[in-house]
Amino acid sequence: MARQQTRDDILAAGMDLISRQGFNATGIEAVLKRAKVPKGSFYYYFDNKEDFGLAVIERFAQRFGDRLAALLAAEEVAPLARIRNYLEGGLERFEGNCCSKGCLVGNLGQEMADQHERFRRRLEEIFLTWQGQFAECLRQAQTAGEISGDLDPQATAEFLLSGWEGALLRAKVMKSTRPLRAFISILFDRVLR
Amino acid sequence: MARQQTRDDILAAGMDLISRQGFNATGIEAVLKRAKVPKGSFYYYFDNKEDFGLAVIERFAQRFGDRLAALLAAEEVAPLARIRNYLEGGLERFEGNCCSKGCLVGNLGQEMADQHERFRRRLEEIFLTWQGQFAECLRQAQTAGEISGDLDPQATAEFLLSGWEGALLRAKVMKSTRPLRAFISILFDRVLR
Repeated sequence: MARQQTRDDILAAGMDLISRQGFNATGIEAVLKRAKVPKGSFYYYFDNKEDFGLAVIERFAQRFGDRLAALLAAEEVAPLARIRNYLEGGLERFEGNCCSKGCLVGNLGQEMADQHERFRRRLEEIFLTWQGQFAECLRQAQTAGEISGDLDPQATAEFLLSGWEGALLRAKVMKSTRPLRAFISILFDRVLR
Repeated sequence: MARQQTRDDILAAGMDLISRQGFNATGIEAVLKRAKVPKGSFYYYFDNKEDFGLAVIERFAQRFGDRLAALLAAEEVAPLARIRNYLEGGLERFEGNCCSKGCLVGNLGQEMADQHERFRRRLEEIFLTWQGQFAECLRQAQTAGEISGDLDPQATAEFLLSGWEGALLRAKVMKSTRPLRAFISILFDRVLR
């Protein structure tokens, strides 16, 4: 149990630092210092920095995926309102982080897609999983008559995910939630209808 | 003239490497090697790596800005078609780069916005300039009756820029132009009308 806890502390510290400064700029020493774990023990838990980076991605994907799945499958809420709840919740979290960090998968995708094929492949799978979850919710919105039957759920989910990742990126650069608000408002006023 | 040429060779090599692997992972030595410039001469042209990074951003912003301005102000083309030409041209260039690199401003924004305030401020200014250029073109599309007078040109330009940056990010991760195609098609079918 203690070992599992230590590993998790290292991953939590890594997730925070990598979200802020990227993978290349994050040193193992800084991670261990933040996790308050003795320097020598890193290699007890991880083979190397790459192995550690992949474990950080898994941790993020699992936590984030659980939250996304719970929100998008909330049957007591109308399908479109589930998507709105997700996006507005994301906006609040981003504001709570002082418009920093953004999405770890987007950050690492931007940084690592051309550098590291194992990272890229895993990030691609995660994007496809999210896209599938949005597409399923959009299909339910069509069945409920909330959006046009003409919209292709997969392409629309793709559009939604791209737009949200891009709005997070721009919001991080602007240090403002305005790009997120513009995205949500035009998405619901013009696309999801 | 020779000095100006050498500086430009270093910036061109830097732009290519930083676009692929980010700022932190790009070493000065690798840049000079690619530019075929002797190692000692870097500090003749740049004070330090930060100064070099800012000069790479300027070079990209100027070249890219010139292209964007020329396309969006092409009076012989209808305003909406100018935007479409820009996006489809971007898609072709991205395909020509084997779905790598993406947008240097987006890449550096993602990597550096939380780490380096001078970079962040300059990237923010560049995003705002682009947004203004798109907004002006959208205003002309309204005057020409191509899109609804209800659309707010600034918010729509913000939406367009976010969506495109996000689609480039996802396309880089997927190594596919599909996110770019989904973005263009839904943008014109649903938003810009």
